[in-house]
Amino acid sequence: MLSEIVAKLGGTLRGEDRRIERLAPLDTAGQDDLAFLANPKYRRRMDACEAGAVIVTPALADDLADTRPLILAEDPYLYFARVATLFHPVAPPVEGIHPGSTVGEGSRVGKGTEIRELVSIGRHVTIGENCKIYPGVVIGDEVSIGDSVTLHANVTVYHGCRIGDRVGIHSGSVIGADGFGLAWTGEDWFKIPQTGRVIIEDDVEIGANTTIDRGAMADTVIRRGAKIDNLVQIAHNVQIGEHSAIAGCVGIAGSTRVGAYCTVGGAAMFVGHIDIADKTHIGGGTLVSKSIRTPGTYASSYPMSTMKDWMANAVHLRHLDDLVKRVKRLEREQKTRNNREDDTDE
Amino acid sequence: MLSEIVAKLGGTLRGEDRRIERLAPLDTAGQDDLAFLANPKYRRRMDACEAGAVIVTPALADDLADTRPLILAEDPYLYFARVATLFHPVAPPVEGIHPGSTVGEGSRVGKGTEIRELVSIGRHVTIGENCKIYPGVVIGDEVSIGDSVTLHANVTVYHGCRIGDRVGIHSGSVIGADGFGLAWTGEDWFKIPQTGRVIIEDDVEIGANTTIDRGAMADTVIRRGAKIDNLVQIAHNVQIGEHSAIAGCVGIAGSTRVGAYCTVGGAAMFVGHIDIADKTHIGGGTLVSKSIRTPGTYASSYPMSTMKDWMANAVHLRHLDDLVKRVKRLEREQKTRNNREDDTDE
Amino acid sequence: MLSEIVAKLGGTLRGEDRRIERLAPLDTAGQDDLAFLANPKYRRRMDACEAGAVIVTPALADDLADTRPLILAEDPYLYFARVATLFHPVAPPVEGIHPGSTVGEGSRVGKGTEIRELVSIGRHVTIGENCKIYPGVVIGDEVSIGDSVTLHANVTVYHGCRIGDRVGIHSGSVIGADGFGLAWTGEDWFKIPQTGRVIIEDDVEIGANTTIDRGAMADTVIRRGAKIDNLVQIAHNVQIGEHSAIAGCVGIAGSTRVGAYCTVGGAAMFVGHIDIADKTHIGGGTLVSKSIRTPGTYASSYPMSTMKDWMANAVHLRHLDDLVKRVKRLEREQKTRNNREDDTDE
Repeated sequence: MLSEIVAKLGGTLRGEDRRIERLAPLDTAGQDDLAFLANPKYRRRMDACEAGAVIVTPALADDLADTRPLILAEDPYLYFARVATLFHPVAPPVEGIHPGSTVGEGSRVGKGTEIRELVSIGRHVTIGENCKIYPGVVIGDEVSIGDSVTLHANVTVYHGCRIGDRVGIHSGSVIGADGFGLAWTGEDWFKIPQTGRVIIEDDVEIGANTTIDRGAMADTVIRRGAKIDNLVQIAHNVQIGEHSAIAGCVGIAGSTRVGAYCTVGGAAMFVGHIDIADKTHIGGGTLVSKSIRTPGTYASSYPMSTMKDWMANAVHLRHLDDLVKRVKRLEREQKTRNNREDDTDE
Repeated sequence: MLSEIVAKLGGTLRGEDRRIERLAPLDTAGQDDLAFLANPKYRRRMDACEAGAVIVTPALADDLADTRPLILAEDPYLYFARVATLFHPVAPPVEGIHPGSTVGEGSRVGKGTEIRELVSIGRHVTIGENCKIYPGVVIGDEVSIGDSVTLHANVTVYHGCRIGDRVGIHSGSVIGADGFGLAWTGEDWFKIPQTGRVIIEDDVEIGANTTIDRGAMADTVIRRGAKIDNLVQIAHNVQIGEHSAIAGCVGIAGSTRVGAYCTVGGAAMFVGHIDIADKTHIGGGTLVSKSIRTPGTYASSYPMSTMKDWMANAVHLRHLDDLVKRVKRLEREQKTRNNREDDTDE
Repeated sequence: MLSEIVAKLGGTLRGEDRRIERLAPLDTAGQDDLAFLANPKYRRRMDACEAGAVIVTPALADDLADTRPLILAEDPYLYFARVATLFHPVAPPVEGIHPGSTVGEGSRVGKGTEIRELVSIGRHVTIGENCKIYPGVVIGDEVSIGDSVTLHANVTVYHGCRIGDRVGIHSGSVIGADGFGLAWTGEDWFKIPQTGRVIIEDDVEIGANTTIDRGAMADTVIRRGAKIDNLVQIAHNVQIGEHSAIAGCVGIAGSTRVGAYCTVGGAAMFVGHIDIADKTHIGGGTLVSKSIRTPGTYASSYPMSTMKDWMANAVHLRHLDDLVKRVKRLEREQKTRNNREDDTDE
């Protein structure tokens, strides 16, 4: 019932109470579904929408001549997300270690933690309570893992890494592989021992097939509440600040520090050894080539066009310096003439 | 024998019949090899080529004074690909479930399907006939897989996903991990339950270490015959149209729909919530920043040059708006002067 | 003791001998630590640095009024790397095959090689001496692996691939998946059998979640001493030259040849079928769109700016061709006027 949702999560119910079967997007919701409208730009979609009830802002509700039940909430998207957790509770882990898994000597597994089959846990590993470790996970020696951590199938955690509480890591991600540290001898590359660790603090979530390298001497650190998407590369000694969110396909080169509360769009790339201020926002595809001291929004992508237009325009980029010089010359000549004419006019 | 190939695959044999030992590229083929020449641009390579026989177009054959046996086919590359399947038949799976694997309760495995060792299959999973599941594969609960599917080593399929017939997924790919759905509470990120699925239709092939996230509420859908390369990121609620081909390192952000018969070059990136028309072709490295309504070829990459030239030119991009204004001013002054001179002339 | 280090690795000790407990970066090193200073640009950091001893160049040492012990070496970074291997020796493998692993018929494992649990080794595989194969590794049939090779957890090597001596491959990497070879039939994509192999020569190191596809007919080849970082995509038939180093998130399309002694910055992308000269250096994020015949440094990225500036400037890129034409017209008019004035002057 809508009233039960409001009782649990706050907000105001406008219109009559009713039963809700499931959640759905505005454009596909049916009569028994609850939808949400966050962006006033899409308000027209309300007319065609068949949802049994909708979550909207109080401001928008006043504007709408909508007769169906509405839940009024300041942030409809966030409210909807909270409702979703009511409808889709996460199953608790089933305590126990599957006999088809291996736990090395000196390792301890906390109460309520489930270790599924085909898991390899090294020596002197500590795993907290109520964790869920899926099949195919490999955990190296001396790793420490907090409480309520989920490691999805085929995740690898190298020796010595530390993972806090309530961390989730999706399948295929690799935590703590060697960083790309090489010194040129004059004949070949000499590998620099990567002796640091990866430290993942509490409430971090990491997507699938992401790689976070161990530090070279210091540690690579992902701070509390940071969220990292799929196929992200985080190099050795990088630090990601608290509550920063990093979208898919991003790469961050060695020793770069990203501040707190930053957001990074997909496929952005950071060079190494730079500092990014707190609350910086980086557009998708941006090559972040130097430190950013002033919070704000930054971008660098070449704008898309048709191939024909691109071919006509892009060729000039190779001669832009020349073009600028030509404009300067024109300005100079223009100025000379203007001066001459002024003289003549006198 | 060449005549047997022509009997099976069509085309015309010109010259005498002979035995062929193997297939090879034009430039390394030996006397017992069959090669192909698809692009007339490379016809000169025929002279140096030692191949025992070559597949060419009828048009090109007429032009060539080549005395060796030729197979004439309209599309030599496609013809060659078909010959290759004759020379390299795929071994059929060996029915049976390896005792070192785990199949959850309520799961069914079809006739002729081979489950190799170290495989984890969840509960209520359906796997069709003649599939091949390699070691290290992890399949979550309630997954449905059709006939003649190959899951290579260390693939992960999350709970509830659906995979059609004749699908191939290469090692390390992750199907159905949570999408990157976050709502900001004012203090931290609130995770939005990702309750949709991934639907992979028939005849799809997916490369290695690619990630396809489950939908947030709706499903992520890869339509019939689509082909996806390695290290591709497909976010939640994305739809890929029939027979579209997506090259390596591409990222597609949430809820974007790519039409049918599209091709996407390597490392292209799509922002979220956009629509791409059928038969659109995207150049490598393009940032697709808005919907494309008109089929065609699109591009956006910055042209490569030497670092020295790049440094001279790229700096002006930050002042391009200023440059355009300067040219406008010059034009205005020029025009004023032209008008004045016209007045003088009268 | 510093004197022991110098005795083993060369260089000169300036100042008094002392005991060193560990290695550390210049800015966090304590009294018992050894640090290094490679870049004279950072020499001021010496003043604040508390390291017990520092490795510097002889030239820099002459310049510094530093009273603590110094080790003088021509390349302090390389010297430091060598010291690190003294402080962090790698544990040798423990000979033996874990009973929870599977070795196919006709396969041989050399002396001193350790096969951990949950490993799958196919038929007719050869693995040399002193290798270490971590849990979750899957090796296909007829693979050949040399001596002193380390395959980290969850690595996949497909059938028929060849790996030389002293190769290291980090977790999640996939060697030998099918290349993205497709021919369009007019109705759908026809898969071209990928019948080549991946050949990895001696002393190659490969990062985590990298993919190297098998050749289509020929082989994909990674030559001696090449170093490849995380999340790199190397397509079918590519060749990487000796001692070339490729940073994270790079993609190299099919049949491209990268020469020897090249360096490739992160997220650079190469189109297919091109040749890159030996000793070429590619900047991060560069789209390498054609062959490079002349060694040197190349770049192509759009420079970063604030979103506001970017929006003001980037829009003009779509009209750059028009801008160039306008400048040409201005120049023409200017020239006509100059000529006329010259005439008038006469």
